[in-house]
Amino acid sequence: MKAYIEANKERFLSELFDLLRIPSVSADSKFKGDVLRTAEFIKEKLVAAGADKVEVCETAGYPIVYGEKIIDPTLPTVLVYGHYDVQPADPYELWDSPPFEPVIKKTEIHPDGAIFARGSCDDKGQMYMHVKAFETMMATNSLSCNVKFMIEGEEEVGSANLGTFVKENKERLKSDVILISDTSIIANDVPSIDVGLRGLSYLEVEVVGPNRDLHSGVYGGAVANPINVLAQMIASLHDENGHITIPNFYDDVVVLSEQERNDLNAAPFDLEAYKKDLNINDVRGEAGYSTLERTGSRPTLDCNGIWGGYIGEGSKTVLPSKANAKISMRLVPNQQTDKITALFTKHFESIAPKSVKVKVTPHHGGEPYLMPPTSSAYLAASAAMEESFGKKPIPTRGGGSIPIVALFERELGVKSILMGFGLDSDALHSPNEHYGLFNYYKGIETIPLFFKHFAASK
Amino acid sequence: MKAYIEANKERFLSELFDLLRIPSVSADSKFKGDVLRTAEFIKEKLVAAGADKVEVCETAGYPIVYGEKIIDPTLPTVLVYGHYDVQPADPYELWDSPPFEPVIKKTEIHPDGAIFARGSCDDKGQMYMHVKAFETMMATNSLSCNVKFMIEGEEEVGSANLGTFVKENKERLKSDVILISDTSIIANDVPSIDVGLRGLSYLEVEVVGPNRDLHSGVYGGAVANPINVLAQMIASLHDENGHITIPNFYDDVVVLSEQERNDLNAAPFDLEAYKKDLNINDVRGEAGYSTLERTGSRPTLDCNGIWGGYIGEGSKTVLPSKANAKISMRLVPNQQTDKITALFTKHFESIAPKSVKVKVTPHHGGEPYLMPPTSSAYLAASAAMEESFGKKPIPTRGGGSIPIVALFERELGVKSILMGFGLDSDALHSPNEHYGLFNYYKGIETIPLFFKHFAASK
Repeated sequence: MKAYIEANKERFLSELFDLLRIPSVSADSKFKGDVLRTAEFIKEKLVAAGADKVEVCETAGYPIVYGEKIIDPTLPTVLVYGHYDVQPADPYELWDSPPFEPVIKKTEIHPDGAIFARGSCDDKGQMYMHVKAFETMMATNSLSCNVKFMIEGEEEVGSANLGTFVKENKERLKSDVILISDTSIIANDVPSIDVGLRGLSYLEVEVVGPNRDLHSGVYGGAVANPINVLAQMIASLHDENGHITIPNFYDDVVVLSEQERNDLNAAPFDLEAYKKDLNINDVRGEAGYSTLERTGSRPTLDCNGIWGGYIGEGSKTVLPSKANAKISMRLVPNQQTDKITALFTKHFESIAPKSVKVKVTPHHGGEPYLMPPTSSAYLAASAAMEESFGKKPIPTRGGGSIPIVALFERELGVKSILMGFGLDSDALHSPNEHYGLFNYYKGIETIPLFFKHFAASK
Repeated sequence: MKAYIEANKERFLSELFDLLRIPSVSADSKFKGDVLRTAEFIKEKLVAAGADKVEVCETAGYPIVYGEKIIDPTLPTVLVYGHYDVQPADPYELWDSPPFEPVIKKTEIHPDGAIFARGSCDDKGQMYMHVKAFETMMATNSLSCNVKFMIEGEEEVGSANLGTFVKENKERLKSDVILISDTSIIANDVPSIDVGLRGLSYLEVEVVGPNRDLHSGVYGGAVANPINVLAQMIASLHDENGHITIPNFYDDVVVLSEQERNDLNAAPFDLEAYKKDLNINDVRGEAGYSTLERTGSRPTLDCNGIWGGYIGEGSKTVLPSKANAKISMRLVPNQQTDKITALFTKHFESIAPKSVKVKVTPHHGGEPYLMPPTSSAYLAASAAMEESFGKKPIPTRGGGSIPIVALFERELGVKSILMGFGLDSDALHSPNEHYGLFNYYKGIETIPLFFKHFAASK
């Protein structure tokens, strides 16, 4: 298989470039045509790789691309999940090269080069590794499990229609494990597997004061200023220890045992390099927890956006009518997203002073997730990475959310293994997102090894 | 004179409409041509009214229009100040009629109709009353003082070049009083004169965390979020009593005596109507002070704008690199704007946590101002209004700032009288700004009476 990959590596890369060129931004309706084109692209490539029953399945939103190869019904079946949509690329002016014109650049972390483009890591580069790994296994007649593909187009906007698709296709999606590459390893020489994912609760809040923008001289000091009030309300959501103050917020949080904390903190982590990479003088978070614990095992609250008043050129002495913010919380087992959303809403409405009106609008969320490192799926992924990296991977708890993982377990009764090949420094959701060539090809090499080990375990 | 005004009222209005149609927005460089055109318009009208030595005087920014009529050097000289530039009209979509297409609409407060347009009250309507009052006095041979006009084009952006003009033209601007109409009366049947103006300190702040936007799952909880930090810093600027927490902020504030507080609170004020007009359930401000005191005699702090992170359509789970805000403070005697700006800057930088970097950029400011209600200028304005309204005006302390008033006193040694005819409900700096026809004509009627009484007092 290595020989096949080597012989076809140029084409594997140029096809990924073609995929990256289509700006499949699901959050912004002006890219609708591009998102749909991307689904067709994935379908073509699956067909070319040898998949059967490949279909661009319509949903109430963007379609889900399905395909399969059943070689022997008695063999275990791996269901591959990925997404072909990408985050918006705003702000464009901060990209060094255009976000939808992939280029290879060498960096300190990626001396062999990395592919710079929106979606190169999240998730097109990682998802496409599976298509090429499948092609490789087919071409070399080494497919050891049945395989099914479920590649959706709405992950970045909450996978609103995936649940319905899964519920309506339980037979078609029957499988023994779901394989997902949308997470990261600690470093290119320190492989790791995410055994935990944080959940997500996302809301938009609006604080309304006077019924119109006011002159801040005539009214300032007499009337509640929605920006100042919003700032006070947001500030009150954390105490001086970085602890979230929403009543009952931590009730369902499973606290790590001493052993689990030690295991988590044993992963290689260089705080000075971390700070240097971000150019910050200090990290900041919940008192009493290390950086790895703060991102991996503790729930958090962040403002993702805030706006109000005059934000244009120069000065304007306005006391604005309203102020808005987008706020999200990352959750850990066993917090539940709907419950947290309700707690937040109730609390935020209750702390609003009488002089303003507050509106809270929930966006998409997702449950937290945990995969025991003793399961056969985990052990197969661990063996595969040990083989391809020459080192046993470390089980880690990721900070990010992949909300549908809990959905899959609930509807299909199947656990997911998060065998990803990205790096935290790949600038996901940021300008200049990239994905290492080393990582792309390592994934294509490792995935068939997972199939091999997983088949052997059954 | 009343007959002359009556005979020419249509033309007085249509000329004002022409003036209002030119979008002289000084804050936005794309309106440069319009601002310059407006200066020429004012020049033409002053010439037509009978002024001498009318000149559009160049400055490093927008020009200042000068004109004069010296009838007798032994008579007192009134220097009329106004501005021909206007605030930006953003957000345009909140205007019921286009901001630069003046229309007359009847309202509850203005049953005879009001002129709806950006600048109708602040300051074109009020400034143009002086041009028409001058024309009226000239046409009826009743000009009782010498008069000089100084109409600038940068008041809304801080009058950066006015100081230089004043310093370089001290001889030309020699006068006994400066007359300004850019403030309001309590109601159309409750005349008042602003004896105090608040000062202004305006700054822009930037909080920078990581050197790039981050994925809020991967980094949330581990790294300081500039929006959350900015919110906390802004929130900390007030205590639970609405008192500003900047050290030494109140040091120079002249506290009103019991008598002065009673006088201020004696002005007619309907709190229920005030709340109803703004559609708020409660006012909010510094504990221990009434609404009139909060706006007239106490310094305040407001956020005029705030922005950071993703503020577009939908959701984006970003932990942004930075967050910004525009913050301004209204000052009272004897606070000084540069001193307050320095105090704010020092304090804001000192409360920034180590995990972020903070930048504070000052914008234009202005000193507070007080005119004693015993001066001859005040008494002349009081007598003029008593004659035209049939009621003695109440001395009030305004919330807004006209920074150049302190500049005039300092450079020309002349005090200003703020005889304005607008209403607080005229929506200055807001969408649907308007100015009552009653008020426009009442001003044209009253201004010559000021000249008469002021001449008589000398």
